[in-house]
Amino acid sequence: MCGVFGVYNSKTPAEDTFYGLYSLQHRGQEAAGIVVAGYDEDKKKTVYRQHKGMGLVAEVFKDEELFDKLHGYAAIGHNRYSTTGASKSASNIQPFSLIYRSGNLAIAHNGNLTNSQVLRKELTEKGVIFHASSDTEVIPHLAALSREKEPVHQIYHALRQVEGAFSLVMMANDQLIAARDPYGVRPLALGMKIDPDTNEASYYIASETCAFDILSVDYVRDIEPGEILLIDKISTRTHKPKSLFLPPSKRKARCIFEYVYFARPDSTIFQHSVDKIRRNLGKNLARESTVQQNNGDKHLIVASVPDSSNTAALGFVRESNKINRPARFEHGLIRNHYVGRTFIQPGKASREIKVRSKYNIIRGVLQNRQIILIDDSIVRGTTARMLIKLIREADPKEIHLHISSPPITNPCFYGMDFPTKGQLLTNMFDGAENEQEEIESIRKYIGVESLKYLSLQGLLNSVPKFENETCSYCTACFTGDYPITVADNKGEKEECEC
Amino acid sequence: MCGVFGVYNSKTPAEDTFYGLYSLQHRGQEAAGIVVAGYDEDKKKTVYRQHKGMGLVAEVFKDEELFDKLHGYAAIGHNRYSTTGASKSASNIQPFSLIYRSGNLAIAHNGNLTNSQVLRKELTEKGVIFHASSDTEVIPHLAALSREKEPVHQIYHALRQVEGAFSLVMMANDQLIAARDPYGVRPLALGMKIDPDTNEASYYIASETCAFDILSVDYVRDIEPGEILLIDKISTRTHKPKSLFLPPSKRKARCIFEYVYFARPDSTIFQHSVDKIRRNLGKNLARESTVQQNNGDKHLIVASVPDSSNTAALGFVRESNKINRPARFEHGLIRNHYVGRTFIQPGKASREIKVRSKYNIIRGVLQNRQIILIDDSIVRGTTARMLIKLIREADPKEIHLHISSPPITNPCFYGMDFPTKGQLLTNMFDGAENEQEEIESIRKYIGVESLKYLSLQGLLNSVPKFENETCSYCTACFTGDYPITVADNKGEKEECEC
Amino acid sequence: MCGVFGVYNSKTPAEDTFYGLYSLQHRGQEAAGIVVAGYDEDKKKTVYRQHKGMGLVAEVFKDEELFDKLHGYAAIGHNRYSTTGASKSASNIQPFSLIYRSGNLAIAHNGNLTNSQVLRKELTEKGVIFHASSDTEVIPHLAALSREKEPVHQIYHALRQVEGAFSLVMMANDQLIAARDPYGVRPLALGMKIDPDTNEASYYIASETCAFDILSVDYVRDIEPGEILLIDKISTRTHKPKSLFLPPSKRKARCIFEYVYFARPDSTIFQHSVDKIRRNLGKNLARESTVQQNNGDKHLIVASVPDSSNTAALGFVRESNKINRPARFEHGLIRNHYVGRTFIQPGKASREIKVRSKYNIIRGVLQNRQIILIDDSIVRGTTARMLIKLIREADPKEIHLHISSPPITNPCFYGMDFPTKGQLLTNMFDGAENEQEEIESIRKYIGVESLKYLSLQGLLNSVPKFENETCSYCTACFTGDYPITVADNKGEKEECEC
Amino acid sequence: MCGVFGVYNSKTPAEDTFYGLYSLQHRGQEAAGIVVAGYDEDKKKTVYRQHKGMGLVAEVFKDEELFDKLHGYAAIGHNRYSTTGASKSASNIQPFSLIYRSGNLAIAHNGNLTNSQVLRKELTEKGVIFHASSDTEVIPHLAALSREKEPVHQIYHALRQVEGAFSLVMMANDQLIAARDPYGVRPLALGMKIDPDTNEASYYIASETCAFDILSVDYVRDIEPGEILLIDKISTRTHKPKSLFLPPSKRKARCIFEYVYFARPDSTIFQHSVDKIRRNLGKNLARESTVQQNNGDKHLIVASVPDSSNTAALGFVRESNKINRPARFEHGLIRNHYVGRTFIQPGKASREIKVRSKYNIIRGVLQNRQIILIDDSIVRGTTARMLIKLIREADPKEIHLHISSPPITNPCFYGMDFPTKGQLLTNMFDGAENEQEEIESIRKYIGVESLKYLSLQGLLNSVPKFENETCSYCTACFTGDYPITVADNKGEKEECEC
Repeated sequence: MCGVFGVYNSKTPAEDTFYGLYSLQHRGQEAAGIVVAGYDEDKKKTVYRQHKGMGLVAEVFKDEELFDKLHGYAAIGHNRYSTTGASKSASNIQPFSLIYRSGNLAIAHNGNLTNSQVLRKELTEKGVIFHASSDTEVIPHLAALSREKEPVHQIYHALRQVEGAFSLVMMANDQLIAARDPYGVRPLALGMKIDPDTNEASYYIASETCAFDILSVDYVRDIEPGEILLIDKISTRTHKPKSLFLPPSKRKARCIFEYVYFARPDSTIFQHSVDKIRRNLGKNLARESTVQQNNGDKHLIVASVPDSSNTAALGFVRESNKINRPARFEHGLIRNHYVGRTFIQPGKASREIKVRSKYNIIRGVLQNRQIILIDDSIVRGTTARMLIKLIREADPKEIHLHISSPPITNPCFYGMDFPTKGQLLTNMFDGAENEQEEIESIRKYIGVESLKYLSLQGLLNSVPKFENETCSYCTACFTGDYPITVADNKGEKEECEC
Repeated sequence: MCGVFGVYNSKTPAEDTFYGLYSLQHRGQEAAGIVVAGYDEDKKKTVYRQHKGMGLVAEVFKDEELFDKLHGYAAIGHNRYSTTGASKSASNIQPFSLIYRSGNLAIAHNGNLTNSQVLRKELTEKGVIFHASSDTEVIPHLAALSREKEPVHQIYHALRQVEGAFSLVMMANDQLIAARDPYGVRPLALGMKIDPDTNEASYYIASETCAFDILSVDYVRDIEPGEILLIDKISTRTHKPKSLFLPPSKRKARCIFEYVYFARPDSTIFQHSVDKIRRNLGKNLARESTVQQNNGDKHLIVASVPDSSNTAALGFVRESNKINRPARFEHGLIRNHYVGRTFIQPGKASREIKVRSKYNIIRGVLQNRQIILIDDSIVRGTTARMLIKLIREADPKEIHLHISSPPITNPCFYGMDFPTKGQLLTNMFDGAENEQEEIESIRKYIGVESLKYLSLQGLLNSVPKFENETCSYCTACFTGDYPITVADNKGEKEECEC
Repeated sequence: MCGVFGVYNSKTPAEDTFYGLYSLQHRGQEAAGIVVAGYDEDKKKTVYRQHKGMGLVAEVFKDEELFDKLHGYAAIGHNRYSTTGASKSASNIQPFSLIYRSGNLAIAHNGNLTNSQVLRKELTEKGVIFHASSDTEVIPHLAALSREKEPVHQIYHALRQVEGAFSLVMMANDQLIAARDPYGVRPLALGMKIDPDTNEASYYIASETCAFDILSVDYVRDIEPGEILLIDKISTRTHKPKSLFLPPSKRKARCIFEYVYFARPDSTIFQHSVDKIRRNLGKNLARESTVQQNNGDKHLIVASVPDSSNTAALGFVRESNKINRPARFEHGLIRNHYVGRTFIQPGKASREIKVRSKYNIIRGVLQNRQIILIDDSIVRGTTARMLIKLIREADPKEIHLHISSPPITNPCFYGMDFPTKGQLLTNMFDGAENEQEEIESIRKYIGVESLKYLSLQGLLNSVPKFENETCSYCTACFTGDYPITVADNKGEKEECEC
Repeated sequence: MCGVFGVYNSKTPAEDTFYGLYSLQHRGQEAAGIVVAGYDEDKKKTVYRQHKGMGLVAEVFKDEELFDKLHGYAAIGHNRYSTTGASKSASNIQPFSLIYRSGNLAIAHNGNLTNSQVLRKELTEKGVIFHASSDTEVIPHLAALSREKEPVHQIYHALRQVEGAFSLVMMANDQLIAARDPYGVRPLALGMKIDPDTNEASYYIASETCAFDILSVDYVRDIEPGEILLIDKISTRTHKPKSLFLPPSKRKARCIFEYVYFARPDSTIFQHSVDKIRRNLGKNLARESTVQQNNGDKHLIVASVPDSSNTAALGFVRESNKINRPARFEHGLIRNHYVGRTFIQPGKASREIKVRSKYNIIRGVLQNRQIILIDDSIVRGTTARMLIKLIREADPKEIHLHISSPPITNPCFYGMDFPTKGQLLTNMFDGAENEQEEIESIRKYIGVESLKYLSLQGLLNSVPKFENETCSYCTACFTGDYPITVADNKGEKEECEC
């Protein structure tokens, strides 16, 4: 996964992008970069300046002098998720900044193209050179090879050819361009700020609206699935950016896992509050739960794995009390503030001490209690297992693990970097005859009294409905039903590019 | 404030101390150090090796090779709180490691001596040299000048002369020594782990028990007020460390602010769970609160300033519902994980953006609601004010700020680094005729519909009672009633040493 | 300027390249990079791994773990000279590592293409994207667009189209390719080492032979002007690399300034020892000098600006004594070992203290003496002026500055990064009616009793002769006679790319 | 060894000390520190601020902002030589800055005390605490225990009690104090600069005069053996610092090895130019040499190990020609500029590649020649052996190694950090019956055609004579004749403290 950000007509585009990327840090911690468009007085034209590096945004941009160099009027930025292998390379850090026949081009991409291997092959046959292994790089090449004159039309031409998931923020010379695939897999939002003195608009593009909040920017609307939005100097005065549209798809494929886990709770994603959806997940989980109080207590104790499951836990408690299963929310686990990328574990520390370093348990609220522990999802299961072992030290009577989404059974080809199919916990118990047996195996492995996943229907009931769409979400990771053809991958998933 | 840690009879004393200090990181983020006692095969004796530096524990010890050098069998460590001025100096970083007539001595101190200036004057008159401005340094000098032969007796001799607050972890040659002042101002706990093969005990000393949990060490008991505990090789076999006692004080002076804010919620402090006490604070606050639902909602919304006030908020909600003031806990604010010491704010960022960078607001749960916001305390008031401004963006109907402790009106001379009296928010409204007027001024300054502090009695009702003590707590910051004479400071408080 | 290096069939190609680049550090201190070709057991093919960064080789590769990652059997490396402006960008650091239709390609370039702007324009029109502003990038694009199948033929095709100076070290999949322009502007040498056990050859390519010496590699011969040398697995057994030749040029254009200043004295360049040529420069300078002893001393004192002019000074002394102008070499200036890239000058240090920090003067050998100071060249004149001021503090009787090359009057378009024409000292005295007046102006500016430049004829008499060549050297910086058309630059020189 | 520096009445004392220490970098590369005395407007008194760290001066002070903090009117600084073991500790980095009964004290020491162990024992018995293992620390303790009132008298009192070698620069409150032991073992010089506007003097103290040159400060005179010089505000107006004198010693013990190797050639040491003395060493070596030309050449080729032996080589050539042994100086070896502390050798590089990385050989001047190679001294012999191996690659006919000092046979107890007696090359050939046999063994080990050491008499003839002294130099490392009793060391030398 990745976070993308763009700003147009700001006096401090690099600083704005810094704060934007900082807010989107949860979408990618491996690398960060900013490309700024500024007018060069000597060259009498717009030039692009960039800084990129491995690490958190605040690490990559820790030298304040960088911002003196990155002056201009527009910028785009990118956070890259932690990936493995080839993509570790510094040459894969986005945004890419390029020079081509129409001038400067810069691009930042969230998502994953599903026909990039096919396109790369075609392009290299024509003599095209690639600098990185990223799928993103085909887009500027397709644009550069287009016969169109205007960058926005070149990009339209390029995006007609690519398949898969893309939320893009680009700059072409003195224009800012945002685009989203026709399926609408990844979120992308438009923000605006009006200067009261000049009545000029500054525009902002971001993966999530939380990036607008830190800058006191108003959320205008989402970039629509299939939309290519052009922001230029005229737009700042007219307040009317122009749009092109890619051929529409009736079926949409919004990533439902963004609601489950990925997005920040204070963001609005796909036009709805993430926090509210997570609360729905908790409520539906409560309705499906069968755990009964059997300890003579007045209430079941509901705790969450902080911070991503906090809201689901509150929704669970509220609904649970409504349906006469008395429950009480408690902070049984607290996340340690000081754990971070720089945290080292001397002495070849076990995964156990990593879990201990990350979470503090509050014994008093767990001891001798029936605990319902809410988590959003289980991927590999190793952390969950250690966490349960840790909670056991507080001597709870029972631990009932409730997951606010169905079992993850399939890899994602659209940008979420789950491990390969074989590494998913659900696929580790080969002998299982049916789903029930499989879940029982997982329950034993993790070591809890009971294990409950939210049903697919429960999940679908929790998320917003969109009219006039045959289908609104991608649920492939839970169902194996892939809405977009994956030309590149015939069999097992390869390493995720974003 | 500071965190101290000690370990005896471990194969990995530096690593243990690293994790211990990491757990105690909230007690001090400015600097960290570890001194290890190891047996030098060439010199045929115990030698001390050390590493210290400015910054978080994980920053100071980020080079893993350090741990190869810091091998041995015992260690002590120290986290220093962020202070100002002279104490910024690297020569003040503890533990101090010294050579004196009886061999090696190392010392780590949490607390603040109140007659160190007087003692320094006497000592320098005798020809003693000080390396740092720290109050702590008088202790080893008094010990070195003692005529006693055994280090533990030298230390007893020294501690008889000092006044104030001290929780100390020391090493003298191949012994570990822990000590706590007769008033018991700062916490200090003893932990133990038995090797099942050899039946040998490893001993651990820490400011808070959370440092034991990360190492799977069992909490044994607190070091008692006035106790000097000696751990040596014999103790590891007999499981019986020896103790000396300083002349006792009937009146104790446990820092009540440790319960209110400072200690980690998963720690046991002064023999009681911090989390539980904070819940009591919330309950008593609910009983004293006069806010009434007037919005046509079913519930008042209770949110906390995360994470220190979370438990108080839960206690508040529980009690509130009991006394028929329907209330619901919501995560209205979320703390950003990526904010840290390395976080820079380019562009001369305002305090506003600092607050925005630290907290995310969940609009959905705040909008149009009557909010009771729970915070543990207000010191200067600047952050609270910005936070309220931020919450206003979510358009709540009313914000009622409830503080789970009384107004802070006086500086601390025993180790908590409040600002000087003049910088405390409570002392900024000189014209106020009485407390009520003063609180009204604060309310306006912060910008809330109502402001409620927990009463002193409510606070005292929330904390544990200890038998046979004329008084058990220091409440000086709330009352100005200082239990220990402050020989050094006649008037206004000087800069805190720890 | 830059340094290039390549190695084929080594067990430690990254380490070899590190030492090679370290030896070539004088050719470029701004940035360094290494690309390694290694066989990936999982992918069953050769992959390229790289590390690049700003700074000295020893700084960029200071983390020893890098070498664990950079394992393989072949490598190329590049040192970049300190340049200004756009080329500061990290995306310009070579070698470039690329993916194209025939697989992997990596390229390191010393020299400067003179028609790269023209070619870039043509290529971008075809839809080619450029990542950097470097002239070098056109070469891989031309190769990728070639219809040839073999990488070496693609490269031949590309090099037929480029004009200017190029000494190239490239890798294409599992081959190493070296190439030199038909004019032979920049040096490039071939080295070899035979494994006595297997009789397999390891091949080495370097800008200068000093890079072979540090690795105990034997110098075989120069890459010939116009030669494209292919080294592959077969060559390691047959000891016979294959060569293609670009259309030859009768006129050659070896950079004479390599002999004057740039190359390391212990290198063999253009088949001749640099040290020996510099000695000739000193001898010819002695023959042309008119300074006479007039101080009652037995000898004139000859000092050099260390270390580049040491040998010229020794040659001067030797010849001077032969022609009855008694002279003695003295170490009047010593270069400070500790000055380096990391050297800072606090307090907004003047250029004066920079000169003082770099050179130590030995007063005893200069005081009251007639000094002949030998320097290799004067570019801007600011350092020379400060140096003379510094030497004056030793109270010499007279300072006669002798330069072992003619005045630099024109910029270089083939890779030497002189400043623009206007910044050259020789062009600062506009009023000068003739060369004599101009030199008199320079003499006054620098502040010496006399100033003598070696004549162009003296310079040409000092360098080796090559048979069957209409002309063997480029002397454009001294004469303005440019041997290769400069398609890109019509007027004043633009910023140098290498 | 170490370098010390002090400045009084400067507007930029930290910057001055930085440049001073930079000039003295050759005296110590392990660590560096500066303590500044500045007037604190708030506290209405002088306060000391410091910065210290491991590494070269330019590394320790690379953050320019440090100099903003280190403002004041006076400063002292210290460079520490590379030592082993305990002294690696950061707590041993000088200057030491202390607080004692009379206020602030700071001290920087070059030399080594020979009764510090005895004094430490006495002091610890009295209750004194030591922070470091350095011998220097006894001096401030003795001063603090003195009953004198004036710091300068306290220091006098302390220095009466210590034995050994000390050149000290100290600050006591607002005074600068310099002192040198009665034997004058280590150099120490006084410099001055007069402000033409105010006629106020700024004073400078440095180990060597080269530290004055970089600051354009005038050398006034040496601090005399046994002198304690006091500089205060009065001195700046009167231009008359006051002096106390320790009981004089008729015998002096100037370290003769400072002239042979240690001091910088452009310094004046013990009132005489180092460069000139080194030239004398070369001349006397020429007189003692028996090498004869036998190769049919006109001259013997004389090369030096740069840069320390350059002047001796020139002196050798000059004298050699006078006595009809025709010789010519050549730069046969060139020192690499880029070798430095940051230089790493990946791949577990042999000592061979270290030598190759440090020196470049000029084959042309060595091949087929009879080489006389001049070096200043041989300590362990490992570098010399590798260097000879390297030179052999240039195929010289013969290599005659001439050393411009006698064999080092004994350790130094006065501050030069030779290895222990057993590690000295001269003591590795136990079977040798006499000196001649021993030198023959060394010759074979190093691998040269002949090996010649300068005789002791030759050495003594080369250095200045001082009147009215029974003896002027310490030659203990060559003769074992120790002029100052070594109370601490009964047998083999322990690790040098500096």
